[in-house]
Amino acid sequence: MTDSHAPLTDSPLDLAQGLIRCPSVTPHEGGALAYLAGILDQAGFVVERPVFSEPGTPDIENLYARIGHGPCLLFAGHTDVVPPGDAAAWRHDPFAGTVEGGELFGRGAVDMKGGIACMLAAVLAFLARRGPDFGGAIAFLITGDEEGPAVNGTVKLLDWARGRGERFTHCLLGEPTNPDTLGEMIKIGRRGSLTASLTVHGVQGHVAYPHRAENPIPGLLRLAQGLLAEPLDAGTAHFDASNLEFTTMDVGNPSTNVIPAEARATFNIRFNDLWTPETLAAELERRLAEAAGNRVRYSLDVRPTNSVAFLTAPDAFVEQVADAIEAETGRRPVLSTTGGTSDARFIKDACPVIEFGLVGQTMHQVDERVTVADLDRLTAIYERVLEAYFPLAPAT
Amino acid sequence: MTDSHAPLTDSPLDLAQGLIRCPSVTPHEGGALAYLAGILDQAGFVVERPVFSEPGTPDIENLYARIGHGPCLLFAGHTDVVPPGDAAAWRHDPFAGTVEGGELFGRGAVDMKGGIACMLAAVLAFLARRGPDFGGAIAFLITGDEEGPAVNGTVKLLDWARGRGERFTHCLLGEPTNPDTLGEMIKIGRRGSLTASLTVHGVQGHVAYPHRAENPIPGLLRLAQGLLAEPLDAGTAHFDASNLEFTTMDVGNPSTNVIPAEARATFNIRFNDLWTPETLAAELERRLAEAAGNRVRYSLDVRPTNSVAFLTAPDAFVEQVADAIEAETGRRPVLSTTGGTSDARFIKDACPVIEFGLVGQTMHQVDERVTVADLDRLTAIYERVLEAYFPLAPAT
Ligand SMILES: [Zn+2]
Ligand SMILES: [Zn+2]
Repeated sequence: MTDSHAPLTDSPLDLAQGLIRCPSVTPHEGGALAYLAGILDQAGFVVERPVFSEPGTPDIENLYARIGHGPCLLFAGHTDVVPPGDAAAWRHDPFAGTVEGGELFGRGAVDMKGGIACMLAAVLAFLARRGPDFGGAIAFLITGDEEGPAVNGTVKLLDWARGRGERFTHCLLGEPTNPDTLGEMIKIGRRGSLTASLTVHGVQGHVAYPHRAENPIPGLLRLAQGLLAEPLDAGTAHFDASNLEFTTMDVGNPSTNVIPAEARATFNIRFNDLWTPETLAAELERRLAEAAGNRVRYSLDVRPTNSVAFLTAPDAFVEQVADAIEAETGRRPVLSTTGGTSDARFIKDACPVIEFGLVGQTMHQVDERVTVADLDRLTAIYERVLEAYFPLAPAT
Repeated sequence: MTDSHAPLTDSPLDLAQGLIRCPSVTPHEGGALAYLAGILDQAGFVVERPVFSEPGTPDIENLYARIGHGPCLLFAGHTDVVPPGDAAAWRHDPFAGTVEGGELFGRGAVDMKGGIACMLAAVLAFLARRGPDFGGAIAFLITGDEEGPAVNGTVKLLDWARGRGERFTHCLLGEPTNPDTLGEMIKIGRRGSLTASLTVHGVQGHVAYPHRAENPIPGLLRLAQGLLAEPLDAGTAHFDASNLEFTTMDVGNPSTNVIPAEARATFNIRFNDLWTPETLAAELERRLAEAAGNRVRYSLDVRPTNSVAFLTAPDAFVEQVADAIEAETGRRPVLSTTGGTSDARFIKDACPVIEFGLVGQTMHQVDERVTVADLDRLTAIYERVLEAYFPLAPAT
């Protein structure tokens, strides 16, 4: 329920501007969920706005809305955005939603207020055309905590929905999935992410007396080479090769005549469906033990991760979405699992989930923007998906 | 000149205690030079206490004293000491000069107030025995800036003395040269020291999109391996092999999902007489260029150094000192060039210099201490050196 009374527009540009004008930098709701709630309520949805808490993190508002009965197509997304950075560096106020030269500027234009606007516009048009008895259910699961710690967002919202008996047949997550051009890429899975820290223990001493010390830096070099020497794998049918990147390496010794006692490095692995966090940790331990021999004393700290690799097996729904994209753009999208993690890694436990949204090029950057043409095209794609998912009963 | 009137003792223990009780942590004089000046003045030395200044560093007091004419044996050293650290961790107050179980405790006991006390005791005994017309000259060159920046110490004191026409025949520097037992080791040279910083330049990016970034850490690993792969040399007649130690390696990237833009490392090389700082820098550039190929973008910053490798060719003076040591300890000392740098690297430009002092084991540590027996033995050694250097005219 909501007491907002926004005019019922089904223009994706109007909706995207309405959302961008809400300064919803994580963890602030900024009016974005209230704006959505008002429109969904007027469209006949039952709207809920659960707030989730966790000690040490800010309370977060979320939104869940549903209409209809039967097979349920879930649209998922987030209204929170990353900070605009130096607003003065933007061509237009990042929260003004200015259109110039056929492009809509603003934080969230592609990630992912624009995507939500297209979902909403498509659903409003579909409901206007088909009425509330379209032969199924449509739900929106929108979090305000995707760009932040992601503790009080999708995970808790899914738990909350499960507790209420809500069930979903398929989910379409509207994150920006296209690298350059609308229609290039559907995400049907995501790699997992694992972070670990490696510490090599030495013995401090004076550089003039290296035999009395034990420099940990050559040991760290040896272990790092051991981790990087062989690829983790060569990729799989739907996944790129797993990849390890060292993100930092730190000793912090200001004295140029002192051999330090310890050297540390942190690395992150994006891994495919050949691995679980457990098998990967075992492989890391094996490589380190082999590289260390009995010459390097080290400890490895693998951080717990809820980011496992997953794949939504290509099925009829994936085909429907791909067909809709091809019909509107002339492109058959690649079924990809590249890029970072997303909330799809949580949704996959509730129902098969795929991701398709706008072009991600400017996401998280200054002058984030989307063409108005893309907003219209993505809306048309989502409408085709709805029509295919809820076909008209055949004339009897 | 001085107005202090210390009693004229020639006990090395008394003198060492007197010095230890002056809290002369660099850059503070702490009364130590005044104490020496008083005793040298009473013994007939002409004593000078020049103060040197340099913008950005504290003013430092120094001492120069001379007696006699003709061939001049220079005793060199420093009265400044490193801080005691946690004084509560010491068995005895670091500035009390407590004797327990035949050992004298205190900051500077071996580095090198103890050594100065032995020099002074030996000279006082020698002058008492031989009188002022012993056939030569004895000088003391004592700085208060060896443990600190060493800017307003030995270098300026030598310049000052040269400007006054002071000339030296040989120098004995009383730094602690013995690793474990008195008599083991004379230093007849020192390795040089060169410090350089290496920066590898990459392109920042997200770990999920490594092909759009360029991680500098593998490049740094490659360059570091290139520097460490082959020994710089195998050592020379009087020098150990040159040695390179990485002292730090830093990226400082707190984000585990970000590939950093830059990685930095610092290393120090202790190098022997096969190298100058210039030839060494050229070798570093050669190794780095070879390891980098056209794959790693880097820059090398070699810091200017006044620490070059030098050797005092073993001569009759070295033999005299070695003979004196053997006569007192029964050990023939090794002629070594190991360990860190010392002010000998500056003195070598004024006259041949060798180093012999106490046992260095506890230097710069908590509970720095020296046995009273070692103080007596080192004094006896220095006395033998004086007698050999200034032999009695043969009876006619
Ligand atoms: Zn997003
Ligand atoms: Zn010293």
